[in-house]
This record gives sequence, C-alpha cells and structure tokens, in this order.
Amino acid sequence: MQQVFASIITIGDELLIGQVVDTNSAWMAQELNRIGVWLKRRVAVGDDRNEIVHALDEQSKDTQIILMTGGLGPTADDITKPVLCEYFGGKMVVDEKTLDHVKYLFEKIFRRPLLERNLQQAEVPDVATVLHNARGSAPGMWFEKNGKVFISLPGVPHEMKGLMTNEVLPRLQQYFTMPFIAHRTLLTAGIGESFLAEAIKDWEAKLPSHLKLAYLPNYSMVRLRITGSGPDKTLLDQQLDREFTALKELVKEWMVVDEDKPLQVVIGELLKAKNKSMATAESCTGGYIAQMITSIPGSSEYYKGSVVSYANAVKEGLLHVSHDTLRSDGAVSENTVKQMVQGALSSLQADYAVATSGIMGPGGGTPEKPVGMVWVAAGNRHKIITQQFNFRFDRLRNIEMTAINSLNLLRKFIIENS
Amino acid sequence: MQQVFASIITIGDELLIGQVVDTNSAWMAQELNRIGVWLKRRVAVGDDRNEIVHALDEQSKDTQIILMTGGLGPTADDITKPVLCEYFGGKMVVDEKTLDHVKYLFEKIFRRPLLERNLQQAEVPDVATVLHNARGSAPGMWFEKNGKVFISLPGVPHEMKGLMTNEVLPRLQQYFTMPFIAHRTLLTAGIGESFLAEAIKDWEAKLPSHLKLAYLPNYSMVRLRITGSGPDKTLLDQQLDREFTALKELVKEWMVVDEDKPLQVVIGELLKAKNKSMATAESCTGGYIAQMITSIPGSSEYYKGSVVSYANAVKEGLLHVSHDTLRSDGAVSENTVKQMVQGALSSLQADYAVATSGIMGPGGGTPEKPVGMVWVAAGNRHKIITQQFNFRFDRLRNIEMTAINSLNLLRKFIIENS
Repeated sequence: MQQVFASIITIGDELLIGQVVDTNSAWMAQELNRIGVWLKRRVAVGDDRNEIVHALDEQSKDTQIILMTGGLGPTADDITKPVLCEYFGGKMVVDEKTLDHVKYLFEKIFRRPLLERNLQQAEVPDVATVLHNARGSAPGMWFEKNGKVFISLPGVPHEMKGLMTNEVLPRLQQYFTMPFIAHRTLLTAGIGESFLAEAIKDWEAKLPSHLKLAYLPNYSMVRLRITGSGPDKTLLDQQLDREFTALKELVKEWMVVDEDKPLQVVIGELLKAKNKSMATAESCTGGYIAQMITSIPGSSEYYKGSVVSYANAVKEGLLHVSHDTLRSDGAVSENTVKQMVQGALSSLQADYAVATSGIMGPGGGTPEKPVGMVWVAAGNRHKIITQQFNFRFDRLRNIEMTAINSLNLLRKFIIENS
Repeated sequence: MQQVFASIITIGDELLIGQVVDTNSAWMAQELNRIGVWLKRRVAVGDDRNEIVHALDEQSKDTQIILMTGGLGPTADDITKPVLCEYFGGKMVVDEKTLDHVKYLFEKIFRRPLLERNLQQAEVPDVATVLHNARGSAPGMWFEKNGKVFISLPGVPHEMKGLMTNEVLPRLQQYFTMPFIAHRTLLTAGIGESFLAEAIKDWEAKLPSHLKLAYLPNYSMVRLRITGSGPDKTLLDQQLDREFTALKELVKEWMVVDEDKPLQVVIGELLKAKNKSMATAESCTGGYIAQMITSIPGSSEYYKGSVVSYANAVKEGLLHVSHDTLRSDGAVSENTVKQMVQGALSSLQADYAVATSGIMGPGGGTPEKPVGMVWVAAGNRHKIITQQFNFRFDRLRNIEMTAINSLNLLRKFIIENS
C-alpha cells in the first residue's frame, strides 16, 4: 500500500505581508492526518500567476495531493481560477448548479443585487470537478493530472472547512487506497507538555513504530493523540486500545476526558447527566468563559448565563459582592471571587457557578498584585472552592489560561460535589 | 535600486501535523515589509535533511534573503544546525560568547543542571556569524553565499522576535539598499467585497503600478489597504495620501475608520473622547461581544460589563424584560432587545448599551423564526435603534456576524447621538 503525501499551497498577498495568520494549514494538516495522508510541505505564495504555476510544478513532483486555498474571491486580485484553467488546459464554463446557488445566496441570504462579477463565481474550468460550497459563493474545484489530485478551495476558514469535511476528505478516501487509520485521544489539564513527556517517556519509548504519539498542547491543556495505521483494522484497534489503556493509567492524575472533546463539552455532559445548571461571574475573563460555553450547540440546556462584572459597581449591584470586601481585600481577592460565585448562584438561579478576577495586563499591575495574578472560585450553594494563579503571558493568553483553569476547577468540583 | 525579496523557511514536523499554528511568519513578514523587503514565498518543511537542503536551493534561486526558523533545539529531532553546517561547507566550533550565555541561563535563570546536549547549543558552524539570542540558549546564525543572506533563527516566538528586532533587521538594512514602503488602511462595514470593488473600480484601475490595493475581508467587514514603494519617502507619502483621500471619499458611506484598527477599538476611542461608558446585554452572542471588547487593554475605562442572559429568567431578573413581552413577542423580538438595552443601561449603569437576541443554530429554528434570525438593538437613555438580520452560516459564524453587526450599529448610534 502506497504512502500518500500531500502539500498545501496557500495563495494570497495578504499572507506575504503578514496581514493574516494562516490558521487553515494547521487545521487541514490535522484533518489529512486523520484519514492517513501525511503533509510533506506547505508553501505560501502571492496572487501571482508565475508563483502559482511554479508552486504547482514543484509540489506535484513529490506529492500526490496538492491542496490550494485562497485567491477565489470576486475581486481583481483573485486570479487562482484563471491560472488553474490555463494550467490544466481547460476553458471557463458556467456551472449551472453553482449559478443557482450564487443566485440563491444573493436573493435569499445576502439580499443584495447580483453583480456580473458575482455571476463569474459560477464560472469554472470545464476540466474541473466542481465541489459544492454550501457556505459561500466560490465553489471548490478538483483537478486530476498524471494520477495526482489538485484541489482548489476558498481561503475563508469556515468555507474551506465545510468543503474539506463534506467534499474533499470523502473523495480523497475513495480516490486513494490508504492504510486504516485510527486514533485514541485524551485531554489533560494542569500539567505542562515537558512534564507530561517525562511522566510517560518509558511507555512512549516502547510504542510500536506504526503507532505515533502526538502532543497537542493548547494553553494549559494538552491533548495526547495516538495515531495508528495498518492493513488490519481489528488488529490495529486492539493494539491501540492496549496502549491507550496503559497511557490513561499513566496520566490519570491529569486526565480530563479520554475522548477528543473540549473542556466545556465535558462540563455540559456532566451537568446534563445530573440535570443541573451552571452560571458564570466573570471579571478578568470578560465574557470569554461565557462565549466558550455558548459556542457549543444546546448549551442553553444547562447554561443560565453570565454576569460580566468589569466594573466594581456591577460586582456589587448584580453579584452582591460586599462593598467592604472590595475596599478591604480588593477586586482581585479570594473573598471577592467567593462572593461572586454566591452572587451568580442567586442572581442567575444556577446550581453551579464559577467566578474569575485577576489582572490580565499589560497595565494594572502592582507589587502586591502583579500582572497575571488571578483568583478563581467554583461552587454550589453548599460549598465553594478557590484557586490562585500567577500567569506571565500576554493579555489574551492570560485570559485564556484563566478561563481554562477555572472551568477545570468547576469540572472537578461538579464531579466531587453532586 | 534593486527590489529586495525574501523567503521564509519554517522547519519542524510539528508544522506538518498541524500541532502548532505558525504565527511567526506573519509577524516576520510585517517586520520585513516595514524595512522595505517583500516576502516572495513561505515554505514549511519537516525536520528532514533533504527537505531543508531542497528548500534552501529553491528559495535562494530568486530571493536575496532566506530566513529560517526552527529546528535549533537541543533534542535529537532538531537537525537544522548540522544541515546548515554541511550546506555552507563549515565545521562545528564552540562559540565562547554563546557558551558563557548558555551557562549563565542554566545557572542563574533556569536553575537546572547543564546537560551535554545544552552545551552543544553553543556549537556553531565556523562559517556563520553568530547572532546573540538574549532570550534563549539557541543562537541565531547569519550566512552569506553568492550575495545572498541566509539567516537561521529559533522557532520560539519571543526568541525569534528578539533576534529579528535586535540583530537581523538592523543588519539587513545595512547589507541592502531598500526602497521605502508605506501603507494606508481603512475599515469598511456593511458592504460586501464585490460591491466595494464595484464602487471603486474606476479609481482602482487608475492606481499607479507602484501602489497596490488589497481587499482584506473579515466577516461583514472589509479592510482596504494601499501599499506603496519607492525611493523617495516624501513623494511616496504624497502619492499615498492623495490616493487614500480619493478612496475615503468613494467609500465614506461604509467607512468605519481610516486606520488599521478593530471595530471595538474604534468604539472605545469614541467613548473615551466623549468620556462615556457602555455595556452589553447578550443573549444569542453569549458573551462573544463582551470578550471582544475586553480583549482590548484599557477597556475597563469605558466598559462596565455585560449581562449574558441565556435563560429568559435572567432577561427578566437582571435586565427587567417584561414577562408579557417574552410570552407575546418571544425572546427573539424587537421589543425584547429594546428592553434588554434599557435593562443594561440601568443594571450596568452605562451611557450606551447594545443587545442581541437570535437563533444561532444548528437547532432551535421555527418557520417563523428560522436559524440565523437575529434582532439587535443599540441606544442610550433617550433613544434606542434596532436592526434585524437573517444569517445562514454555521453557529460560530452566526455569532460572530451578530457581534460585528451589533457593534457597528452601536458605533453609528454613538456618532449620531452624543
């Protein structure tokens, strides 16, 4: 069975002037890995005909799958489609299905008049298989040449992701014979990557070569993913389960869940199982925890809401934090976050609540309370637990670290206090 | 004066399995642009000798500056240094200054025993100019070959940034004579990329060739950036200002700001100028707007907080939305968001407030109120304006579109109602 290699060509001047960070490639690489395709190279080029052609020639030399993103917009600087049409020796034709979709989008969704340049988005090279883009007006395109597959996708992340999931990955799995690929993933929290590596290094050293371990760190959480590939699915699953069981035992102290699930989903499932609700009282995280929770469909089943108490008057008014506590202990204090939890439980009528207060920076630090100092609390009507952190990152990362760590505190509390 | 082109080679398997998002390249591209270097290409390769050598050969064909990041760590998979030593025909020697620095770091900063593999970080090819890495143990390296410059930097972002700022950029400015580069950027909202293109196409067609226009769409906002380069800074600025003034006139109807600033920063500056405050009442956006605002340092100056009223009981309890309205009109209605604004103004003691209520999907839609239907309101104590949207994207994008559009409604309201 041949090993299938892919390359990604991201197209767009904005990538070369640093206007946007390319988050697409990392996501695409993970998805390709999932189906057994290994990414050999990534290259970013500008909206330039010769650059695109050169990249296509180069990448198709030693990879069977060449994925392209970007340059499919309706404006003059988007030239990917004509360049591909020329490269694969086709001519532009109107794709009726895409045309209907574009018309539908403009009439029913955007509610804007349809311009000539938008109609042109329905034109595709006649040598391409059109991939339906349910989320936008620029279709994906699939070309084949000398046994290689060339795929052009829009650069807009949610359009690219929809096309990858619904069109590209299934077609690739049909087109190439790939080894069976299986994964086992677990999520840890509260332990750094290098310490985790130290804790499991003997086990990791003994992993058979067809099983690969990936550390997927995301702030204070690290996902461990074992990926196995082989011709025999049953055998592969047996081997994976055996290694996964051993790994879970080694990391049980830090394990959040033995599936590939975000922390807020784990908490949601805990709450639904107990038919309980939760609420948040956020000062320094400023709504970040609320938006994490509500990004999950169905979160209204267990999430009541949040009081984002950026101003102390809001902590007093809506969360009933005592004026004396704010004056004596300050907003960033154990007593304040405890009272914020109590306030959230009553004001938001929830069974569980979590609260955060800290100094996220870059300004606002003092010798006693430096930037990165955070108090968090989690509890119910009977009990409240607290934890203090000192983060030393930039503002956004301090916020995310606080959100993750406070949610993990809540998760532990829910498990221990039904 | 020759146009100076650069390429970036990022080295590391972690980039190819999607373990990390490459944020270095975008930052490096911006810094290179600032000094007049154009990034022609970016390529990511694994920790593989042949891949690295191939990339060096390829990139040095048509770029004068080849920047590399990654693969300089102390672990076995980091092979960049020996590969470069071989490529430039040198031999490894200990750099005393680096050795002292490594010893200092481990004794005074990391307070960890110094391992043999750490000492090896002080070894460099004798054909390289060592670039001092004040922030870490892996030094940067500068090679010259046939008038091209090859620079190897660690992949750790803050180490790379320190080396770029203190060593690489100043040396490049000495080594090459570069044209001046300048940008003008404005932000538009409420108009699609293609309509914008239509509105300015005559002006765009007449742009001199040394001025380039980029469309940078992000949800319902589109940034327009003119980039110019030339030998005479004064002349270039004059030309840019003239074209920028013309562009601003053409798009004034949709222009949010004539600088490269996020919408929530623009609102923050409006509020600070008027010495006014704002608050949010979020149902369907679930804290997303609050988190956007509080991601900006200093937002506590003008932002009081948010009531994330996911449950109707919270709309009634903390925002005083009338029970009758919720029963007769429903939570997703004009009257509800109006009362949410009123409630936020009083409960959060703010001068301005914005409110959102809608169905973000994938579930929860009805024939009368389908997924994507959203009501938003913005106002002060004297006046409240509302707007209704119908989005048809996935949950996360519906949330983001609602957040952006409601904030833009608030921005217009603040301007029109001081």
